[in-house]
Amino acid sequence: MTYELYYWDGLQGRGEFVRLALEEAGAEYIDVARESSGGGTSVMLEIMKREKRPLIPFSPPFLKDGELFISHVANILLYLGPKLGLAPVGDTQRFVANGLQSTITDLVSEVHDTHHPLSTSKYYEDQKEAAKLRAEAFIQERIPKYLDYFERILNANTSGPSYSVGPSLSYVDLSLFQVVEGLTYAFPRAMKDYAPRYPSLIALRDAVAKRPNIARYLQSERRLPFNEDGIFRHYPELDQDVT
Amino acid sequence: MTYELYYWDGLQGRGEFVRLALEEAGAEYIDVARESSGGGTSVMLEIMKREKRPLIPFSPPFLKDGELFISHVANILLYLGPKLGLAPVGDTQRFVANGLQSTITDLVSEVHDTHHPLSTSKYYEDQKEAAKLRAEAFIQERIPKYLDYFERILNANTSGPSYSVGPSLSYVDLSLFQVVEGLTYAFPRAMKDYAPRYPSLIALRDAVAKRPNIARYLQSERRLPFNEDGIFRHYPELDQDVT
Repeated sequence: MTYELYYWDGLQGRGEFVRLALEEAGAEYIDVARESSGGGTSVMLEIMKREKRPLIPFSPPFLKDGELFISHVANILLYLGPKLGLAPVGDTQRFVANGLQSTITDLVSEVHDTHHPLSTSKYYEDQKEAAKLRAEAFIQERIPKYLDYFERILNANTSGPSYSVGPSLSYVDLSLFQVVEGLTYAFPRAMKDYAPRYPSLIALRDAVAKRPNIARYLQSERRLPFNEDGIFRHYPELDQDVT
Repeated sequence: MTYELYYWDGLQGRGEFVRLALEEAGAEYIDVARESSGGGTSVMLEIMKREKRPLIPFSPPFLKDGELFISHVANILLYLGPKLGLAPVGDTQRFVANGLQSTITDLVSEVHDTHHPLSTSKYYEDQKEAAKLRAEAFIQERIPKYLDYFERILNANTSGPSYSVGPSLSYVDLSLFQVVEGLTYAFPRAMKDYAPRYPSLIALRDAVAKRPNIARYLQSERRLPFNEDGIFRHYPELDQDVT
């Protein structure tokens, strides 16, 4: 069965966390909005507008597997994880992984709000002053709170600090790679200061980047570069040194 | 086994979505921070600070069941749902319910940001102007987007509009009750305008309030009133009519 991933074209965004899992596993999938020369986005919007179909998703990304639609990154990864061999073994550990992935969801939402603190429907340029304040609080208070936490999770793993849950790679680790990459793109000044504090996270980022399927993906055209339509945006005026 | 719920004392907050499920099911649980005359909050903070324990939660609420800690409302409800008889039957439907609950999580996060658009660590009074702008966008654009969606979900249920997933009550329905109650508390002017547009949601809210265990809970001292320490806060200056 070929999975269908529905997400906006032209940006990594939240869809990227799902793509990384599909790519690492070598799964067959169609990135619908990207592969139908624009027509896929209309298909996606049409699905979300359907009045009569039960249980349509609220917003992208969502995954279609046969007749089933699954929304939200953490939920999609919870579903795909065992099928792709990227979930920890055992029901208990899966709830743990889902809790970690939900923490990543929270972080990603806060990253988004650094450039859109007042309204998602307004341009960044119309909320730059508020964005500056929000980004400052995010850089000085929130980045270390989240990265301290994930560094602790890695270091507390009884199987060693190479993975976040259990003795092997999970979708959580792929998402942590994306978080470190994204933060480094968006806030290079801050992350230059922070990186030395988080050796296990940086080592995980490096190890994921070298995995054969991920390395191949990162070199492919399927991996769009970070840009200012995505979640992680580099606006130099929002970046700052760590105080 | 008695569940232990860890959440801040003195407010409903995100913990309330878990409480409503536990109360509806008549489950045995300890609301740790509330029941130990202040000492419980220290216990909670101590758990979150432990350096060595793998897989500690990032933030409250979290649930302890035996040796397992589970964080994040949607994840806790995913775990508890089948045990409490409040999850739809079948794995597929559980991912659907989790997608709906994740949409509620997003909504709750946006509600929080109406009074804290710039920084969680600053007082509301220090970000009132930004809050006014964020609340306006939330009321005029986001409330109808979310409530339209949930009304559609109810009306599209092939078992009828009494429940969101399948033919019986699930934790999603209890959370939708809390969403309608919370929005009505926080934004009474806006919700006076919106309520007539959403008959199925309002009927669900009324039906949940009348369920014997919920009605008893709402009358008890365990149900704290909404207040301005919680997620849903009533600041009259942030409320407005629908334009």
